[in-house]
Amino acid sequence: MLRLSLIGIGCGDPEQLTLAAIRAINAADLVLIPRKGTAKSDLADLRRTICADVLTNDRTRIAEFDLPVRDASEADYRKGVDDWHASVAAAWSQTIADRLGSDGRVALLIWGDPSLYDSSLRIARRLEPLPKIEVVPGITSIQALCAAHALPLNDIGEPFLVTTGRRLREGGWPISADTVVVMLDGGAAFRSLDPNGLHIWWGAYLGMPDQIIISGALADVGPRIVAARQQARERHGWIMDSYILKRIP
Amino acid sequence: MLRLSLIGIGCGDPEQLTLAAIRAINAADLVLIPRKGTAKSDLADLRRTICADVLTNDRTRIAEFDLPVRDASEADYRKGVDDWHASVAAAWSQTIADRLGSDGRVALLIWGDPSLYDSSLRIARRLEPLPKIEVVPGITSIQALCAAHALPLNDIGEPFLVTTGRRLREGGWPISADTVVVMLDGGAAFRSLDPNGLHIWWGAYLGMPDQIIISGALADVGPRIVAARQQARERHGWIMDSYILKRIP
Ligand SMILES: C[S@@+](CC[C@H](N)C(=O)[O-])C[C@H]1O[C@@H](n2cnc3c(N)ncnc32)[C@H](O)[C@@H]1O
Ligand SMILES: C[S@@+](CC[C@H](N)C(=O)[O-])C[C@H]1O[C@@H](n2cnc3c(N)ncnc32)[C@H](O)[C@@H]1O
Repeated sequence: MLRLSLIGIGCGDPEQLTLAAIRAINAADLVLIPRKGTAKSDLADLRRTICADVLTNDRTRIAEFDLPVRDASEADYRKGVDDWHASVAAAWSQTIADRLGSDGRVALLIWGDPSLYDSSLRIARRLEPLPKIEVVPGITSIQALCAAHALPLNDIGEPFLVTTGRRLREGGWPISADTVVVMLDGGAAFRSLDPNGLHIWWGAYLGMPDQIIISGALADVGPRIVAARQQARERHGWIMDSYILKRIP
Repeated sequence: MLRLSLIGIGCGDPEQLTLAAIRAINAADLVLIPRKGTAKSDLADLRRTICADVLTNDRTRIAEFDLPVRDASEADYRKGVDDWHASVAAAWSQTIADRLGSDGRVALLIWGDPSLYDSSLRIARRLEPLPKIEVVPGITSIQALCAAHALPLNDIGEPFLVTTGRRLREGGWPISADTVVVMLDGGAAFRSLDPNGLHIWWGAYLGMPDQIIISGALADVGPRIVAARQQARERHGWIMDSYILKRIP
């Protein structure tokens, strides 16, 4: 019987680890660590750092594997994702078969929380035979963003919407909320909105030594964010950022 | 100079504490613990348990104070909240003045994450003089709910809305998303929706020994949830529950 733990590790600060995550890492027979090419190697490194810092069980082994790359030339987005999930599942299965066999506990360290814009749960469901899946929650980038700005996410008793840069660009300001969290934004999609009456709380590399945050009226700070984003991305070779927009009457 | 840390402690399981939270608790000179009357005393107890478990700094003192009760007879909801925030701020100030003076580090342990449907940040902003405010993120009930069901919160690249029971009851299904998280629901507001095509993932006392979860097509499991909720509330004297609804085409 195979058990698979998807363990949220927070989104950049190793101190965002929970006690439950540390316990789950140490309960594993095998920890799978994806190798993702060079650009985002700081991110794979967080996983290695975490294992080095918190692993006290010396029967736990670590197996690195090459994460398949998504085929960006596939025109059908859904099919591209589907194919990619299938090949990641195959890579997990192969590594588990080689290093553990069909019995034991496997752990995967998931950026942020496993339930938020992450494919691991969907990939795990494709494994055959289906392992027993356990999820350990982790601090998300949304919480890291709010914490960095000391910002209450919702207004009192009011809803908020979490969405992606693409949806914001294509759909404009959503109808159902005056607070919008934007993730997975490759290109400062807030520029597509009329900035009038909007405030923004933006953050990049949240929880990491290079954390940058900027907030203010979108009309004032929007251009500054675009510039900071551009510069930081050039310096690091990659960027992870997210932001909250509020419509303030 | 006063510093105030609002420390997210997760939503019921002491193992949801992060390393950063443990560090922040131990960095405090004074930890404020609200006493909330008897019904929800299990919840105040979590704070005491956590302090007992993780405090290793013996210069950190703990001060309990009686949390003012919101005036439910106030007809104007906003004014009721506003008055309540003012009296909680006064209670914090008084306890801090009595036990610490005007210099040092104060910590408050916040249920879940301080940014999510919690008033502590707003109350903290009323303190005079304004302390330096630091927020330590914590695991929210949304993540605990997803983890308990091993459920990906969003569909791939799709948005989700987080809202309250009252808003769902009054506004019906929101326009901007096919996934809705409902919190602060005093009375199974999902009953006001046409259950056709809706699925629900419900959880109460998440992360606690008495955790209950139920999921399925809303038409099938809705009545079972209503009954389970009612029974559990009678047994405990209180209930905290939340749920995710998805419109499945
Ligand atoms: C694939 S999603 C994964 C989200 C993750 N599961 C979580 O819980 O935050 C990646 C997106 O999360 C956000 N993100 C993750 N880590 C971040 C960080 N340290 N700083 C800013 N944004 C971050 C960005 O919007 C990024 O595009
Ligand atoms: C005042 S809000 C506080 C939310 C908290 N700050 C968080 O991060 O989850 C209280 C609501 O959170 C949800 N909640 C908090 N803890 C929960 C638990 N252990 N199980 C189920 N729902 C919970 C319920 O919807 C409840 O009405």
